[in-house]
Amino acid sequence: MVKRQKLYDLLNEKILVFDGAMGTMLQKNGLTTGCPEEFNLDKRKVIKRIHKEYVNAGCNIIQTNTFGANRIKLAEYNLQSKVEEINRAAVKLVKEMAGEEVLVAGDIGPTGKLMYPVGDLSFDEAYEVFYEQAKVLIESGVNIINIETISDIQEARAAIIAVKDAGDVPIICTLTFNTEMRTLTGSDPETVATVLEALGVDILGVNCGFGPDMMIDIVRRMSSVTDKYIIAQPNAGLPKYIDGITYYDLTPEKMASYVEDLINAGANIIGGCCGTTPEHMKIIKDKVKNLRPIVKEEKQFTKLASVTKTLIITEELPTRVIGECINPTAKKYLAQAIKDNNLSLLCEEAIKQVESNANIIDVNVGVNLTEESSVMRNAVYEIQRVIDAPLSIDTVNFEAMEEGLKACAGKPLINSTNGEERHLDKVLRLAKRYGAAILGLTLDEKGIPKKAEERFVIAERIVNRALEYGLKRQDIFIDTLVLTAGAQQQYALETIKAIQLVKKELGVKTVLGISNISHGLPNRAILNSTFLGMALNAGLDMPIMNPYIDKMWEVIKSADVLTGKDLNAKIFVESFNDEKVVEKTIEVNEVKIIDKL
Amino acid sequence: MVKRQKLYDLLNEKILVFDGAMGTMLQKNGLTTGCPEEFNLDKRKVIKRIHKEYVNAGCNIIQTNTFGANRIKLAEYNLQSKVEEINRAAVKLVKEMAGEEVLVAGDIGPTGKLMYPVGDLSFDEAYEVFYEQAKVLIESGVNIINIETISDIQEARAAIIAVKDAGDVPIICTLTFNTEMRTLTGSDPETVATVLEALGVDILGVNCGFGPDMMIDIVRRMSSVTDKYIIAQPNAGLPKYIDGITYYDLTPEKMASYVEDLINAGANIIGGCCGTTPEHMKIIKDKVKNLRPIVKEEKQFTKLASVTKTLIITEELPTRVIGECINPTAKKYLAQAIKDNNLSLLCEEAIKQVESNANIIDVNVGVNLTEESSVMRNAVYEIQRVIDAPLSIDTVNFEAMEEGLKACAGKPLINSTNGEERHLDKVLRLAKRYGAAILGLTLDEKGIPKKAEERFVIAERIVNRALEYGLKRQDIFIDTLVLTAGAQQQYALETIKAIQLVKKELGVKTVLGISNISHGLPNRAILNSTFLGMALNAGLDMPIMNPYIDKMWEVIKSADVLTGKDLNAKIFVESFNDEKVVEKTIEVNEVKIIDKL
Ligand SMILES: [Zn+2]
Ligand SMILES: [Zn+2]
Ligand SMILES: [Zn+2]
Repeated sequence: MVKRQKLYDLLNEKILVFDGAMGTMLQKNGLTTGCPEEFNLDKRKVIKRIHKEYVNAGCNIIQTNTFGANRIKLAEYNLQSKVEEINRAAVKLVKEMAGEEVLVAGDIGPTGKLMYPVGDLSFDEAYEVFYEQAKVLIESGVNIINIETISDIQEARAAIIAVKDAGDVPIICTLTFNTEMRTLTGSDPETVATVLEALGVDILGVNCGFGPDMMIDIVRRMSSVTDKYIIAQPNAGLPKYIDGITYYDLTPEKMASYVEDLINAGANIIGGCCGTTPEHMKIIKDKVKNLRPIVKEEKQFTKLASVTKTLIITEELPTRVIGECINPTAKKYLAQAIKDNNLSLLCEEAIKQVESNANIIDVNVGVNLTEESSVMRNAVYEIQRVIDAPLSIDTVNFEAMEEGLKACAGKPLINSTNGEERHLDKVLRLAKRYGAAILGLTLDEKGIPKKAEERFVIAERIVNRALEYGLKRQDIFIDTLVLTAGAQQQYALETIKAIQLVKKELGVKTVLGISNISHGLPNRAILNSTFLGMALNAGLDMPIMNPYIDKMWEVIKSADVLTGKDLNAKIFVESFNDEKVVEKTIEVNEVKIIDKL
Repeated sequence: MVKRQKLYDLLNEKILVFDGAMGTMLQKNGLTTGCPEEFNLDKRKVIKRIHKEYVNAGCNIIQTNTFGANRIKLAEYNLQSKVEEINRAAVKLVKEMAGEEVLVAGDIGPTGKLMYPVGDLSFDEAYEVFYEQAKVLIESGVNIINIETISDIQEARAAIIAVKDAGDVPIICTLTFNTEMRTLTGSDPETVATVLEALGVDILGVNCGFGPDMMIDIVRRMSSVTDKYIIAQPNAGLPKYIDGITYYDLTPEKMASYVEDLINAGANIIGGCCGTTPEHMKIIKDKVKNLRPIVKEEKQFTKLASVTKTLIITEELPTRVIGECINPTAKKYLAQAIKDNNLSLLCEEAIKQVESNANIIDVNVGVNLTEESSVMRNAVYEIQRVIDAPLSIDTVNFEAMEEGLKACAGKPLINSTNGEERHLDKVLRLAKRYGAAILGLTLDEKGIPKKAEERFVIAERIVNRALEYGLKRQDIFIDTLVLTAGAQQQYALETIKAIQLVKKELGVKTVLGISNISHGLPNRAILNSTFLGMALNAGLDMPIMNPYIDKMWEVIKSADVLTGKDLNAKIFVESFNDEKVVEKTIEVNEVKIIDKL
């Protein structure tokens, strides 16, 4: 295995060339029938020759002939028992042909089955299939694993997590997109990049689908949201079917003419997919010799994602809101729906909240009588089918948390951990494994500290532990917690002070569940919205709130004007332009100031 | 003249005894008819004997027999041309009797005429009368001036300002109260103390009216709002009329029995008014020998006052609001009313604002076509008749400012000065002379600085100059000025930052005219109220605003709960308890927090 940092150093320095198509070369060699992966056992010379041709073409990375060498695909040829043999042989063949300088990538393609809920392949099954193949590839000595040609981000998630569990090896992962720049299940390039980055792949990108020209935009869009290395593996143009045979019409020269644009868009590795040959890769190699990768600058903003959409959270954009209404604790009808396994009510609540402009939907299904894990899993599956907002997985049950994270085919927020070490360990492990952001509450085994400084100490501990676990600072949210103003009035503003401290000293994002402030008092919306305005001014990034309350949005939209998040008050004016201007104030100061000058 | 600090040192160390009644002693000496002050010329021996008796009784301060020695009173005896002769003679008589240790006080009583608008004595006329008498007394060598038995705070104001102009001498000023503890024109003890303190008297208090028992509460109430030295000069009980002659029935012993309570209530000087004799003062002197004055601690809160009421402004009490609606700049009907000299419309606006809970009423009558000085004078006279809120004198015309200040029989706020030296000099001189607080705007000849730090520099200059002029820090307000968010969005929060800086570094009160923030935008109340919440959280003490807008009060009342100004949310609950609770939020955090512990 190549050391990760050595690979990074290489990528920082130059553009690498991945090899081209295996299928096209098998076809050229007359191998048009049978299981292509079985050739690793019975057509070794052909496979080795093809690898050698790519090595000779100057490719820096040669991958194993194992695209379909997983248990499910091999079963199509009744070879499901030969996963180990085939993958082991495939690695050996590449290794025999690759010189000292060439990296060996273990190829992992899709299972060919559709993942639940589109199909019926469960996350756990997919995981097992990928784990089995990856384990053999890694143990056989590949330098890198290349998960490729995936069309469902959820399948990519299962594969990546399986590879991470199988061994410590750099991971490449590429998905395929249609001409609308969406994957089969609707993910766009930003979302693919966001989810793969969160899962910790080393190099992410796009392969197959269409030719290099259409890939430039995808690479650019990925590059706009991530500082990860990017790989582009285009086909040799769009496929044309003639007499039942697929042809790709881009000449090596034509293909190479797009390389510079791909690199400028952010690509670090250029490979070839369907229709590409050693001739293509040789000319591409010649082209990249004189080109340098663009410098990746760390993205300072925070990202969450649903299956289909990425949500950017940053000081320069309008305030994002977490909708809190999927919570059975105080809503009897939701509690009953959960007990009755009637998840459509939860879906309706999710849709309503998104229609009310909530940006993230919190999912809490904690009802004492139910099996929370399965309810959480099903709720996440159902809710993410009907909305495109990222989810917040809200539970204190670690099993339910993990099931929710598996089911969530985006980059969710885990709500939440507190500052207790045993709690932190479990939640951070899950966040890192499933590519989630975390929400840390400033409380520990001793409860919620009264003073801002004490809450800050817990926040600092959470942040430090999360960073140790390898989470990015951008993926850490802190909730400084609200005490009830009615009962503990003297500490009402400690929450606000704590937000200021956390923002200033830790530079992480902040979240606040607002409504508790007014517990037990009349006209709660008034107190809540005023408190919200103060918190936003103090640097609150995301309120957790009931998005149906107009007053809260009035404050958010006003605060966004005042803090510059709503540039030129565009959203404010659009939102309120039709409303009757209720006030006719005098321009006292203005006039006075002019007078006095 | 005794050096001021020497007097203070004396008062810090011990209780002083002022002399007793002159009238009662004249009566005892058979001088029951004629002008009492003329006796300084033709009954010198009697007067000297009375003074001597008080000296022998141990009194520390003996005052001149000049209670009615002003031009108006003397005119009752056709002696108006003898003001100088009589006052000069009176000082000489005391000085001949007083030893080295005894202080000579020049007595100034009321004119006997009622001040405008109750009567027709104008402020300027009263001032002239008092100035004439004070000038003679001071030039004749009194150590102190004692302005006493005043029943209208406005007359006290004219007298004090006249004495300050006549010479640099410590001033005592006492008013008389009825059994409801109000002066003739309705001022309560706190208000008297507030107004006299602001005018810079050295010792303030209460005299005449009734006996010592009823004075204890007045002294205590004065002492609760001021750290000035206090004098109590009770009558020898309540007057009883028998056969046309007034008797006072408290024996010296009985009177002296109240002395300890008066001192504990805050009195530093005990004197006697009607009915008291050298015997009374001797026993009082014996009593005070073993008693020490209470230590005066500086009052940290800010006070403004109308004629009848004192408004305390401090972090521990609910936010105070300046009503901005008396301003013709953008209100055509007010501009027209002012041109028509129809001030009843202004009075209505004042009443409506007070009914809408405004605590201070801003008075701006700046209409180009009118004589602003006389309009301002008349507007202040009329408005303070109909409301009990302190006023804010809002003009950029220094003559109008001075006329407004003369007319205002409370402690007003001057709105405003900016940071230009020539402007500051004029406004600070007027504030000091008329006992007003000032509002400083953070702008100067170069306009409003964009950045908070630059606005702070101007605020600091204003504060330092005001302190140099002898204003108390508590009487300085700073407005960090609002730029329009629509036009200058990037500076919207500089105002808030500037408030924080001013509060933290200068420790003065802050004021902000809110409504300018939303100029040119729709739904202004929403933006204004959100901005207000942020400003209150940053430490804003007093918004200047339209008090008719519910949203603004909702934010103020909410902020007061959050900042602890509305203890136990008492006002909030009272204000909103009847309202429908518009929101049914879940106690998400609360439940979660308990769960997670
Ligand atoms: Zn392909
Ligand atoms: Zn391919
Ligand atoms: Zn008297």
